[in-house]
Amino acid sequence: PAVQAQGLTEAQYQRLKSEVKKELAEEGGTDLKVKWKGAPELSSSDGKFKFKVRGRLNVDYNGIDQDEAITGDPDVSAVELRRARIGVEGVVFSDVGYKFEIDFAGDGASVKDAYIEYSGLPFDITVGNFKPYNSLEEMMSANYLTFMERAAFIEAFGLDRLIGAGLSYDQNKHWTLSAGVFATTPESDQVTFYEDGTTFSSRLTVAPINEERRVVHLGASVRQRDAAGEPRDGVTENLFRYRARGADLHLADRFIETPYIGESDTFWGLEGAVVWGSFSIQGEYSQNKVDVASSIANVSPTYDGWYIDASYFLTGETRPYKDGVFGRVKVNNPVFDGGGWGAWQIAGRYDVLDLSDQAAAIAAGGVVSCAACGEQKTWLVGVNWYLNDYTRLMLNVNQSEIAGGINDGAEVTGVGMRAQIDW
Amino acid sequence: PAVQAQGLTEAQYQRLKSEVKKELAEEGGTDLKVKWKGAPELSSSDGKFKFKVRGRLNVDYNGIDQDEAITGDPDVSAVELRRARIGVEGVVFSDVGYKFEIDFAGDGASVKDAYIEYSGLPFDITVGNFKPYNSLEEMMSANYLTFMERAAFIEAFGLDRLIGAGLSYDQNKHWTLSAGVFATTPESDQVTFYEDGTTFSSRLTVAPINEERRVVHLGASVRQRDAAGEPRDGVTENLFRYRARGADLHLADRFIETPYIGESDTFWGLEGAVVWGSFSIQGEYSQNKVDVASSIANVSPTYDGWYIDASYFLTGETRPYKDGVFGRVKVNNPVFDGGGWGAWQIAGRYDVLDLSDQAAAIAAGGVVSCAACGEQKTWLVGVNWYLNDYTRLMLNVNQSEIAGGINDGAEVTGVGMRAQIDW
Amino acid sequence: PAVQAQGLTEAQYQRLKSEVKKELAEEGGTDLKVKWKGAPELSSSDGKFKFKVRGRLNVDYNGIDQDEAITGDPDVSAVELRRARIGVEGVVFSDVGYKFEIDFAGDGASVKDAYIEYSGLPFDITVGNFKPYNSLEEMMSANYLTFMERAAFIEAFGLDRLIGAGLSYDQNKHWTLSAGVFATTPESDQVTFYEDGTTFSSRLTVAPINEERRVVHLGASVRQRDAAGEPRDGVTENLFRYRARGADLHLADRFIETPYIGESDTFWGLEGAVVWGSFSIQGEYSQNKVDVASSIANVSPTYDGWYIDASYFLTGETRPYKDGVFGRVKVNNPVFDGGGWGAWQIAGRYDVLDLSDQAAAIAAGGVVSCAACGEQKTWLVGVNWYLNDYTRLMLNVNQSEIAGGINDGAEVTGVGMRAQIDW
Repeated sequence: PAVQAQGLTEAQYQRLKSEVKKELAEEGGTDLKVKWKGAPELSSSDGKFKFKVRGRLNVDYNGIDQDEAITGDPDVSAVELRRARIGVEGVVFSDVGYKFEIDFAGDGASVKDAYIEYSGLPFDITVGNFKPYNSLEEMMSANYLTFMERAAFIEAFGLDRLIGAGLSYDQNKHWTLSAGVFATTPESDQVTFYEDGTTFSSRLTVAPINEERRVVHLGASVRQRDAAGEPRDGVTENLFRYRARGADLHLADRFIETPYIGESDTFWGLEGAVVWGSFSIQGEYSQNKVDVASSIANVSPTYDGWYIDASYFLTGETRPYKDGVFGRVKVNNPVFDGGGWGAWQIAGRYDVLDLSDQAAAIAAGGVVSCAACGEQKTWLVGVNWYLNDYTRLMLNVNQSEIAGGINDGAEVTGVGMRAQIDW
Repeated sequence: PAVQAQGLTEAQYQRLKSEVKKELAEEGGTDLKVKWKGAPELSSSDGKFKFKVRGRLNVDYNGIDQDEAITGDPDVSAVELRRARIGVEGVVFSDVGYKFEIDFAGDGASVKDAYIEYSGLPFDITVGNFKPYNSLEEMMSANYLTFMERAAFIEAFGLDRLIGAGLSYDQNKHWTLSAGVFATTPESDQVTFYEDGTTFSSRLTVAPINEERRVVHLGASVRQRDAAGEPRDGVTENLFRYRARGADLHLADRFIETPYIGESDTFWGLEGAVVWGSFSIQGEYSQNKVDVASSIANVSPTYDGWYIDASYFLTGETRPYKDGVFGRVKVNNPVFDGGGWGAWQIAGRYDVLDLSDQAAAIAAGGVVSCAACGEQKTWLVGVNWYLNDYTRLMLNVNQSEIAGGINDGAEVTGVGMRAQIDW
Repeated sequence: PAVQAQGLTEAQYQRLKSEVKKELAEEGGTDLKVKWKGAPELSSSDGKFKFKVRGRLNVDYNGIDQDEAITGDPDVSAVELRRARIGVEGVVFSDVGYKFEIDFAGDGASVKDAYIEYSGLPFDITVGNFKPYNSLEEMMSANYLTFMERAAFIEAFGLDRLIGAGLSYDQNKHWTLSAGVFATTPESDQVTFYEDGTTFSSRLTVAPINEERRVVHLGASVRQRDAAGEPRDGVTENLFRYRARGADLHLADRFIETPYIGESDTFWGLEGAVVWGSFSIQGEYSQNKVDVASSIANVSPTYDGWYIDASYFLTGETRPYKDGVFGRVKVNNPVFDGGGWGAWQIAGRYDVLDLSDQAAAIAAGGVVSCAACGEQKTWLVGVNWYLNDYTRLMLNVNQSEIAGGINDGAEVTGVGMRAQIDW
């Protein structure tokens, strides 16, 4: 600046400016930095403290033809808040952080991520309620999924948050490794069982190519879990069951499902994904080998599930990749008065879940029926309209075919629509 | 400023100031504006992002003589948290906003407003859980009601939040128009029914006079709704019932009520209000014509409800009016150590609800009794003490007379007290 | 500053600086001060508005040998979110503040502190859901307790939050006095009873020595309460019962407990604590005299409970004392990458609860059994590792001996571990 030419030297100017700034910071007490990530992330000037409120809303409509002639279940035409969450995340001193989020959908209260994390070592230590390390789609936030619901094997094989402790390494651009031990009982049953059972989980991901708009992702994960022990109430079932909803839609009924049979099970899964500019292919294959309780039958069926999907942004965006998962899409031309048309993405998926293995042998024990232990094959096509980085509308048109079991031959066809926002 | 008289030119001064500001903003990272509305509303400098935490507490006492000799119900002397809410609202990019609030009263979790709103057009588009467009008192926030509870017809005719989509125009000072379509099933029953039913709703308001301290408000609204279809559990009732609490108090029992009878119904209501300085009169009249399920009786009773109230601020305040509803009272002299006496308001209301139409014909079907299908007339007087814009104490003294039905002749008299805060 | 030596006088400098600051504050709209207390406390420049988000997570493991041979209850090996809370606190104008916090542990929603407070007088007025004024450990935040669970008498004698109103004086460094009147029915039963019952409570504390690292605390409190009246559902029990968990661990079963017997009761308790640098001793003694419902037996047993504990910080910290309770420990050398080892505290406690008084007389009425009306004596040793002011890990090893009743002679031994964070 040429201030000094007009009666104030450059040194005077700099001195004045720095003193004004310092006093403003001190007197104002505004020890604060702000980054807008939907809601503001507040942090102290030295970065030792951080705080952000989180949340999301999913407003859904499902219209489903449930093939009543075969399944006996009427058609569905219904709305719901699929997710309605509020939460917080922050850092309370340098390397100690937390995240805590609750879902109030259906006028309930369901604790989602609720953990403490220490990040002062090369690997992170996490303690609390969080997702065991299995499956690409499961590890991804539902905010960023390509379709409205995850692939059928994820619910079927019981991939969901548990209370436990884990280590995860994600400081290399090209690979991540995570492992943890968890109680098998979910938070909602936290005081139900004398023994909560044990779940071991581990996941490795490799990204030989990890560039902007060019990603090759490979992954593998395993999980071994034992069911919880005796319930305090003498009533709650402690064995595992396996099931999925028709047409990959949340308000559909379930047309393939096993009874409560599993005493322990072993899951393994493989993941692959390629991003090539606006185009992306993604797939997973998984098996879950179940040790049926000996009081039911001496068999160990193996269930499997897999999907493959492809998606394309008509408007040029790409799927961002980091730490072994895909994240928030950056919209090139957000929608607003005077703005652009947002991002448009089209996508298709084929999703298979097979729960039919050894159905006859399970039923032969005479303790349970395995009448719905069948297979479901689902086609999905979808269109996603991202208004901005935090808002999107989704349309899915899906059809499941059921093979085997009491619903054999049923065709379940549905449409799902969602308005989604997060902050 | 007269800075230049002291050795620094005006140009120097402006340059210095703008550089200090720029550097402060860059270094500090404080892309932030703040408005205090109870809690702080944070926004980015360009206004494209906003965020505010919301909430409220209502701490109530009810003491009620329930005329046990006639009604069989003992007197009430009880406290409750009538409302205990936390929520958030914000804008995630320019024209896309959201609001989400949950009520935890009674150790439950009840989703209140939970919607996404697009405001980049002349009219707003709203999707999610919010209030259909009916009735002045229903559309107003409970924070600003003159009495502790809304008029009896509002609960009786089922005016409450539903999941749906709506359009609303409120950019003209003198009128608003809104219309929406909703599922009939509330959020708490979101997965209960195969078919959620349909509700149409629309409201028009006109304010020929809309000045500070001078308002004439006229309004009309209609609603047509069909009950939900078959419940998934085979148990939950899907027909409508109509009922109200004694003495317009929340902890009173209900002395007039119909059984579950309505398959569909049509509501219409008229509104009027005048503000003349600190004085205000307000009233509404409504009818709800019910199509009773043919399995019960082939009748279509018409129920009606209305109220008229008057209120006056002893301390000079007025009722602010905007967008077809009344809002937050600005207190002239808030209460604090060294401050004023707050705002004092006195009010009276007469509130009538008549559910007696065709009671005999309904019961004659032999399927249900209509034993409590009567009429309730309630007198209320109230005093409100506003400590500041966000805090008030309320006292209501109410008396209902019941006519018709099994509680015919009962006089239910009660006192309600509330401490209210919101942020 | 030596600015004036270079062409600008000191007066010019000050004037310039103050004008720049004033205009910056006005234009920037940042009417904001920030204090970091885990999460940021935001306040307006004039201090008339404040706002802070609160919350905490407790992730617990319990492993307990429940002496199944005697008690019949299997061993426990289970995890839980012991506390999972989000809340807010703030000031909406000068002297009117609020606090509201909800616990979501176990996927429930339980309202904790939820009150409005007026602080413009020498004493504070509080209205809402909050803790009646009894017992040092009960009045303290669980964030600051030396052991994972409070002493057994606190749950046994029903010391917990209620809805009511209270006055408290805490402006003298050396004493506090509080008194309140509450409904006896907790928030979760707020609409259950026609009459909510009444609880009176008062507490006096004296601190003849109250210096940094030197504290002598003495306290006494009383409580008189009547049970709620007739329940609306005709089912919920309105009498008091008294009970405690084995080994002072939250996931243990209860081995001493009375039936629902109390129609009213009177509690009194004495408190004492000494802090001498990093060393601290603390103890409480309490009695609860119960009027058994005359329909059960004409007796008035007196139950008592007491504990004494000692604790020591190996790393030099002390227990901060203020307003009659102990608060947040300031950690000298917090743990982070490049930081210190945190604070380490060792502690021991002996905790006794006797519910055996007049057990035979109660059972003699023939209405209820008093089979588990025994005594429990518990030894606890603990180690606490404070990573920073807001995070700690806890380890407790506890053993209870049961005397009297059906579990006579049982030894319940357990270990508890907790990861705790708050903000």
